[in-house]
Amino acid sequence: MINAEELQKNPKLYIFLPLYYTLWADSVLTPTEVLEMQKLIDSQKWLQNHEKEWLLKNINPAKPPKSKELKSWKNKIKELKLENLEDLSQIGIALAKKHDSSIQIEKAIIDDFKEAELALGLLSREAGYAFKSGHQTITTAHKKAYNFDIGKMTALLDGNQADLIKKVKAVITDPSFAYKEYDSLLEQREQVLQWCKDLADQGFGAWAFPKYANGKDDMEGYFTIMETLSYHDLSMVIKFGVQFGLWGMSVFFLGTDKHHQKYLKDIGSLKLPGCFAMTETGHGSNVRGLETTATYDHDKKTFIIHTPNPDARKEYIGNAALHGQMATVFAKLIIDGEDYGVNAFVVPLRNVEGEMVHGVKIEDCGRKMGLNGVDNGVIYFDNVEIPKENMLDKFASVNEAGEFESPINSDNRRFFTMLGTLVGGRIGIPRSAVSATKTGLTIAIRHAEKRKQFGPEGGEEVPIMNYRMHQRRLMPPLATSYALHFALRYLTQRFLKRTEEEAQEIEALAAGLKAYATSFTTTTLQECREACGGKGYLSENRIDALKNDTDVYTTFEGDNVVLMQLVAKNRLTEFRQEFGDMNMFTIFNYITNQAKTSITEKNPLIIRSTDQTHLLDMDFHLSAFKYRERAILSSAAQRIKKHIDDGMDSFDAFNVVQHHLVNVGQAYIERVILEEFQKEVMDTNDVECRDALLQLCQLYALHTIEKNRGWYLEQGYMEGVKTKAIRKEVNQLCWEVRKNALALTDAFDIPESCIAAPIARC
Amino acid sequence: MINAEELQKNPKLYIFLPLYYTLWADSVLTPTEVLEMQKLIDSQKWLQNHEKEWLLKNINPAKPPKSKELKSWKNKIKELKLENLEDLSQIGIALAKKHDSSIQIEKAIIDDFKEAELALGLLSREAGYAFKSGHQTITTAHKKAYNFDIGKMTALLDGNQADLIKKVKAVITDPSFAYKEYDSLLEQREQVLQWCKDLADQGFGAWAFPKYANGKDDMEGYFTIMETLSYHDLSMVIKFGVQFGLWGMSVFFLGTDKHHQKYLKDIGSLKLPGCFAMTETGHGSNVRGLETTATYDHDKKTFIIHTPNPDARKEYIGNAALHGQMATVFAKLIIDGEDYGVNAFVVPLRNVEGEMVHGVKIEDCGRKMGLNGVDNGVIYFDNVEIPKENMLDKFASVNEAGEFESPINSDNRRFFTMLGTLVGGRIGIPRSAVSATKTGLTIAIRHAEKRKQFGPEGGEEVPIMNYRMHQRRLMPPLATSYALHFALRYLTQRFLKRTEEEAQEIEALAAGLKAYATSFTTTTLQECREACGGKGYLSENRIDALKNDTDVYTTFEGDNVVLMQLVAKNRLTEFRQEFGDMNMFTIFNYITNQAKTSITEKNPLIIRSTDQTHLLDMDFHLSAFKYRERAILSSAAQRIKKHIDDGMDSFDAFNVVQHHLVNVGQAYIERVILEEFQKEVMDTNDVECRDALLQLCQLYALHTIEKNRGWYLEQGYMEGVKTKAIRKEVNQLCWEVRKNALALTDAFDIPESCIAAPIARC
Repeated sequence: MINAEELQKNPKLYIFLPLYYTLWADSVLTPTEVLEMQKLIDSQKWLQNHEKEWLLKNINPAKPPKSKELKSWKNKIKELKLENLEDLSQIGIALAKKHDSSIQIEKAIIDDFKEAELALGLLSREAGYAFKSGHQTITTAHKKAYNFDIGKMTALLDGNQADLIKKVKAVITDPSFAYKEYDSLLEQREQVLQWCKDLADQGFGAWAFPKYANGKDDMEGYFTIMETLSYHDLSMVIKFGVQFGLWGMSVFFLGTDKHHQKYLKDIGSLKLPGCFAMTETGHGSNVRGLETTATYDHDKKTFIIHTPNPDARKEYIGNAALHGQMATVFAKLIIDGEDYGVNAFVVPLRNVEGEMVHGVKIEDCGRKMGLNGVDNGVIYFDNVEIPKENMLDKFASVNEAGEFESPINSDNRRFFTMLGTLVGGRIGIPRSAVSATKTGLTIAIRHAEKRKQFGPEGGEEVPIMNYRMHQRRLMPPLATSYALHFALRYLTQRFLKRTEEEAQEIEALAAGLKAYATSFTTTTLQECREACGGKGYLSENRIDALKNDTDVYTTFEGDNVVLMQLVAKNRLTEFRQEFGDMNMFTIFNYITNQAKTSITEKNPLIIRSTDQTHLLDMDFHLSAFKYRERAILSSAAQRIKKHIDDGMDSFDAFNVVQHHLVNVGQAYIERVILEEFQKEVMDTNDVECRDALLQLCQLYALHTIEKNRGWYLEQGYMEGVKTKAIRKEVNQLCWEVRKNALALTDAFDIPESCIAAPIARC
Repeated sequence: MINAEELQKNPKLYIFLPLYYTLWADSVLTPTEVLEMQKLIDSQKWLQNHEKEWLLKNINPAKPPKSKELKSWKNKIKELKLENLEDLSQIGIALAKKHDSSIQIEKAIIDDFKEAELALGLLSREAGYAFKSGHQTITTAHKKAYNFDIGKMTALLDGNQADLIKKVKAVITDPSFAYKEYDSLLEQREQVLQWCKDLADQGFGAWAFPKYANGKDDMEGYFTIMETLSYHDLSMVIKFGVQFGLWGMSVFFLGTDKHHQKYLKDIGSLKLPGCFAMTETGHGSNVRGLETTATYDHDKKTFIIHTPNPDARKEYIGNAALHGQMATVFAKLIIDGEDYGVNAFVVPLRNVEGEMVHGVKIEDCGRKMGLNGVDNGVIYFDNVEIPKENMLDKFASVNEAGEFESPINSDNRRFFTMLGTLVGGRIGIPRSAVSATKTGLTIAIRHAEKRKQFGPEGGEEVPIMNYRMHQRRLMPPLATSYALHFALRYLTQRFLKRTEEEAQEIEALAAGLKAYATSFTTTTLQECREACGGKGYLSENRIDALKNDTDVYTTFEGDNVVLMQLVAKNRLTEFRQEFGDMNMFTIFNYITNQAKTSITEKNPLIIRSTDQTHLLDMDFHLSAFKYRERAILSSAAQRIKKHIDDGMDSFDAFNVVQHHLVNVGQAYIERVILEEFQKEVMDTNDVECRDALLQLCQLYALHTIEKNRGWYLEQGYMEGVKTKAIRKEVNQLCWEVRKNALALTDAFDIPESCIAAPIARC
């Protein structure tokens, strides 16, 4: 076409070229399109007949231009180097004038062209982009832009633990801590053991122990160590936790001075590797159903530890398959044939040479989905005899007369008091989980900043971080990571300063935050994996390990679904002893009082409000969370009560509302998280940091409300116009937070050698 | 207490014992409780003063009974061996009468006791369970109960492919296909290669190829083979798919007779292992942005294949790291400096001895999250020369004159036509994914039937399958697996019989079902992992492999988020060439028409209906799905149009509504799935099978509506009373489907040697 005689003779015909190119470039010509073009050509009085014929010939669907021809049209137009975008007829005119600057185009012609373009369904302005390059749009121009001081934000996150965090990081960034690929399970486990020894040498293992055991008597520091180590290999963290947290703390909290003096020093130095042997094959969640027995022999002053059946073997016990020399074993204490419930005993497994103690049999759990650096094992006891002093006797003992003695007479209450002392695990694990999530988000967000894919016509490809769906995947989790960081710090403080009266509340809080944080971690690392595409699937980019190692966090220290029910039951009752009990029936006075105070606060002016100031208001957020917390608790209680009043077994009644109960726990935890996050925002003095945190806090709040919008709508607490406005606000917050995203992950201050993923390199 | 003189003298006092036990057993006595007991004791005129004193002494909070004492009370009561459960005062009376049969208890006394129990907040009936054993409740009694013929259900699932399925199963259950633990990546990859060779020897590799290439010309069978193999090792399935599906089919569909004659036979027999080299480091989703070049040299009649920069290296290419000898390479064809877009070329990589061809460099992708039996590699081409005939020239070629020729002139349209022929991968992958999900569900459901944990007071522990939350985790996915089975069969049929006019629709359907099914698989296998607790974390129980191997299914054959947008765009436009294009502007005539037909069918009688017949009605389900599909499409179109009318770039406008678009795709796919499932139910002649399928279909429908209830409520299509009733119905359906669950997984008829998980052994 462009070499045709007609064009040479009458350059005015160039006006058709951009339209012709656009029509041919992306499609076969449809009959309608041909018709519209015929109409346009027919109506142009300035065209001579042979020109019309020529033009029509060039829109014959049976004779499309060749690829090469089409390309030459485009190149011809691109030679114009149009700076400002113009529509197709404007481009055509410019082209015509380039060939003959004297050409004049009447307004009527322009109108005809515009009409034709409209009829053809072309968005003329955009069609022109095909002839441009460097075209910028809102999406292409969006980018990183933050104004807070990253160091100040890090200081906010680290708080009074900054020095210890620095100390831990110094160790795990040592070249001896570089990640490795292992040729075998054994090699991996030995490396992890070595790392744990190195950490013990630094004093980290004994950190929470008393000074006489070379400790610092600093439980807060212990949690900080767990959290910071979790930027590194998670097998190491879990092995560390098994040795110093589970094995060490069980001796510390369940034992008495004689045990402390005897064991703690060697536990803290890792001279005495040990296990925490609670879970059995047949009983995981229902610990009270454990079947291992510890039978007292008053003549010999010994206990016989025994596995009465295969279901009673101890399972998944960390440190058992290879390294453990002793274990805290949970077993039912039997005296004179009477069962005194689950108690704890120190039982030797191996001597220092690693030889198995007579009567102990241990099998290797083998490969796991993750945490393969931890040597989990299965332990069987065949009438293993231990001396009487090996009973960890803080809460129960056998007296000189061979009788059971305890300051707590109820087996149940004693059992839960014992377990309550071990609640630290439910603080350490979620803090570890959030560290892993922070690493995952750092990798995924850095990748999303660098990775470009697709772009507007005539423009460059766009960082995938600029796509709204990608922001939706990564920004709310980023906000939640910050929220959980502060919530877990709050939990830790409450735990450290707890009084006896608060114990139940704090146990429920720990159970709930453990469940919430670890489920969040699993979901988020899955998002990170997918958000990094094929790169996320390669082990070198670390999401594999982060995801698979933390996967079991939702199970150990209590299955999350079971835990959320415990939280709900704690909310339903103030009776400590019911904690963990599926049969609860002494709760109804409480419920009746609770029910009275709920369902009050639906303000008819508010439920339809879409005002942005209102939607972003922290008071609105907290009210909505609190309303949900209270209303959902109250309706659960009423449902249970109704079923029981109707004659249903309470066990069945609780089962019927199980799904509801999980939401009760969830709503409570979400309220706590938001409340603490808001306090943190308000307590922040640095204006820029506060603004950044406020935005995250708003995103956490609105994203959570959006997630629960079905419930709010059902309740009539909000109407559709409002939930739609909230969705839009969440999108907008994601768009805004995206500017800070990279800086917010930098503020986590995770050592580069721990991140390690090639796709996360700057 | 029970040995006290008072009791011996006046056995009538035994009436207090059950109440005393209950109060002491679970708690410290509160002041209120003491007060209530004092009131009760004071009011009993039949008591002598010293008896009152004695009774009060025994409820002194400062002097609790010892554990042993407490146990003896309980044992005393249990000696009654109460068959029928009675409340605490009835048990007390029975106890008193046992010691003195002449004792009479007045009704007034019983009333006093009942009143006291109420005031104490005790649920008397249940308190009595503590003294029973073998207590049954609705939850404990619930169990497996199905009435359909499992064989008939299997026959329904297998349809006309039953014989081939049997044949494939015979091969993969051969002892040579037993799962192994591997000492190294190399060992695993060689085993997987060997398995693929064994499958090729059976003729499975060439199944879809023409007869002259030793094939059966049976594409349907090929998909059946992929699906059935997916009960076994998934590395094997993907290696198989790379060789016969991607490498083989690309030659078959993009090449012409000369290529077929030359290569297909050796591909089908695995004599010629090859690769499908499309994805580059810099371009995954945006295939049109590929940068590898194929520059034509007319003098030598060759193409030079070249990697111009590191981002243009071919990445994640299966079969590349070790075994591939050739590859279909996608590269931009350059003739005389002009770029003719992405085309496909057969490029040799290694000779039969495995030596690399000059100019080819391959790196190993190393360990991945899963699929480690597949040798993925990174390929660089340094000016690799190939003969002209190596261009796969079905859709484009270079003619004798050295000019580009194609029956399709538009680069875009040609590109998408080429890609369209490869849509089979988007059928094979979701079918493989659903097989893996079926295996995961079989393992988790079998485990849940056997695993018992917790139980009612005085009763046995309950199979975790009886817990409502557990049902909520596993029953909807079981229903969805059936739904997807039929939907993917429908897709396969549509694909096999497609006309040119239907091609775009079917490509969108495949893209959407691929995204939907593989995301479902990822979510469900995660649920299965967690539902199996610690056991699910052990590799021996297979969920590890199932989950990690399928994890990348959400990424390859198209990232799911990108695919769902493609589906939405297909819904928005009938213009084929826009498929895959982020810049779409020629769609508005269509949109305007679409918008007119929507938002019509909110029946005010229906939106509040909680009638069960209505809620379970298939017509209601389908109407709700269709309404959502249409309304959400129409509102997305209107939003885009409004933004563009307001002057926004279409690229930006699509980005703003990206989240909305993904829902458009989702709603469309969900409607198709439901529609096909309903047809399948109605076409089922066997009444028992139909009933079982109907229940699954109802569960799929209502669970999906429940998931989208926020949207339905926002739209005013349903009111809160109705969505609450739906939630209840979903719970009830889960409870009912649970009875069939084991049988429904048995009907999948997955070979036991493929399931292999110890926890799934019957």
